[in-house]
Amino acid sequence: MIGIDWGTTNLRGWAFDDSGAVIAARTGGQGISAIAHGDFAGALHALIQDWTDGSVPIVLGGMIGSRQGWREAPYIACPTTLAALAAGAMPIDTGIGSGWIVPGLSYIDAAGVADVMRGEEVQLLGAEMSDGIAVLPGTHSKWVTIAEDNILAFRTFMTGELFALLQTHSLLGRLMATPVPGTGPDWAAFDKGVRRALVDPSLTALLFSVRTEGLFAHLTPEALPDYLSGLLIGAELAGVPKKDAVTIVGAGPLATRYDRALTLAGCTGNRIIAGDDAAARGLWRIGATILEGIAA
Amino acid sequence: MIGIDWGTTNLRGWAFDDSGAVIAARTGGQGISAIAHGDFAGALHALIQDWTDGSVPIVLGGMIGSRQGWREAPYIACPTTLAALAAGAMPIDTGIGSGWIVPGLSYIDAAGVADVMRGEEVQLLGAEMSDGIAVLPGTHSKWVTIAEDNILAFRTFMTGELFALLQTHSLLGRLMATPVPGTGPDWAAFDKGVRRALVDPSLTALLFSVRTEGLFAHLTPEALPDYLSGLLIGAELAGVPKKDAVTIVGAGPLATRYDRALTLAGCTGNRIIAGDDAAARGLWRIGATILEGIAA
Repeated sequence: MIGIDWGTTNLRGWAFDDSGAVIAARTGGQGISAIAHGDFAGALHALIQDWTDGSVPIVLGGMIGSRQGWREAPYIACPTTLAALAAGAMPIDTGIGSGWIVPGLSYIDAAGVADVMRGEEVQLLGAEMSDGIAVLPGTHSKWVTIAEDNILAFRTFMTGELFALLQTHSLLGRLMATPVPGTGPDWAAFDKGVRRALVDPSLTALLFSVRTEGLFAHLTPEALPDYLSGLLIGAELAGVPKKDAVTIVGAGPLATRYDRALTLAGCTGNRIIAGDDAAARGLWRIGATILEGIAA
Repeated sequence: MIGIDWGTTNLRGWAFDDSGAVIAARTGGQGISAIAHGDFAGALHALIQDWTDGSVPIVLGGMIGSRQGWREAPYIACPTTLAALAAGAMPIDTGIGSGWIVPGLSYIDAAGVADVMRGEEVQLLGAEMSDGIAVLPGTHSKWVTIAEDNILAFRTFMTGELFALLQTHSLLGRLMATPVPGTGPDWAAFDKGVRRALVDPSLTALLFSVRTEGLFAHLTPEALPDYLSGLLIGAELAGVPKKDAVTIVGAGPLATRYDRALTLAGCTGNRIIAGDDAAARGLWRIGATILEGIAA
């Protein structure tokens, strides 16, 4: 089987043996926003044509299933399961074998607020959780509640996008200096931000303290980005259902920040799963479930 | 007496008679960020030279007293009073008469978070409140608590700046359409945002609902800016000390939004004071107090 993670700006493929072990991995440059004239087939062929004689099933996840992608795979509403997600996959002729595009997830909370994810559900299923709370940190962090193999609910926080916006375009960014390369985060500044945001619900007021911390030289210009990061992650943690341990699915440095912030919030037994590994494993699990469904 | 409100991007002057009534008003184009070679005197002369023979006292408030201004007037720490603010004004020879630059205010809350204002303190004093809660909406909204003529505490919310950032630079902005000119705000969308933010403390998650409200066509693209405005103002109101009535000092349309949001939050007897009138009145009150101090 071949698994493809195809996002807005990235394209990655994995080849699996029959047991689900990764036997090859490849990264391409063409996210869906870079595909001209809808030639998704051409980009896929360029990436993995030499992996298949046309008989290998191909599972594709991510923004490739959005309205801007190859074929739209409508959202599956939560609560839902791996089996329902596999059943909702949209078949597609890739030109180099049968393909299935994984749908995204939607959720409407008790207050009627709607939420969506597309791509993260693959990583989530790759984490192989039966019960618990998972966070997938990033531009739009996703917090997911799972019980007895059901994906019950999730919520998106615009943490990463807000960090980038405030650093790049706001008055706050003008006070910041770039941290010295190789020095790592200023954890004291980060912790200060997390602690304040955990107990103070007025984030839009706390954000102004990035300015005053700089103005009164309580923090150095180099420390302000880490303070801002702590405020935003702390505000995120203040509003999510937490248990003793959270599963963090993501890349190293950001996962480390979330683990640290969670520890400050009282969650000490967290587990970190690399996002790439989770994406590959999730594509395999979904693909295996699709093929079981066809065989049955 | 002459009063000057001199901000980063604007310059305004008022001439007062001996009773404090405004007898002339003028708006110039040179905020302090547009002044070349530190020639603040030249810009002031161009605005109001014909109003004075050199014997009229001139009171200047706003960013003109910042480090980037004409002469720095250090922050006065809250709790404080009109008298303390007047006593802290920095004398300056304007070249066309004696001048005084009004200081800004600072405040450190119980958690050690510092805050500052510069310019709003003039409008605040112009509102002539002895007791109560005032809000000065804007790019950086200020909420102020006053008791027995003492300015006890204040807090800044980056509401206006966040609105502009999210509309201009974020993923959310791409879904928004410009409202049709002349139609006024979509109050149903605004109210929806306010109500949600009043009860849900996770603003960074609610912000993502601007996307889903558009994606699922719950709101039109033209309504999304008002929904976002409601979310941000609602989140601000959720975190401030409110009483039955709040004094709103600001320009018409924005003051109307705050009055409406406050009403949804249970504050129904609000008073709106035009920001321009408050600035003029505040400069007069501070100037009169300075002159009393000199005479005494």
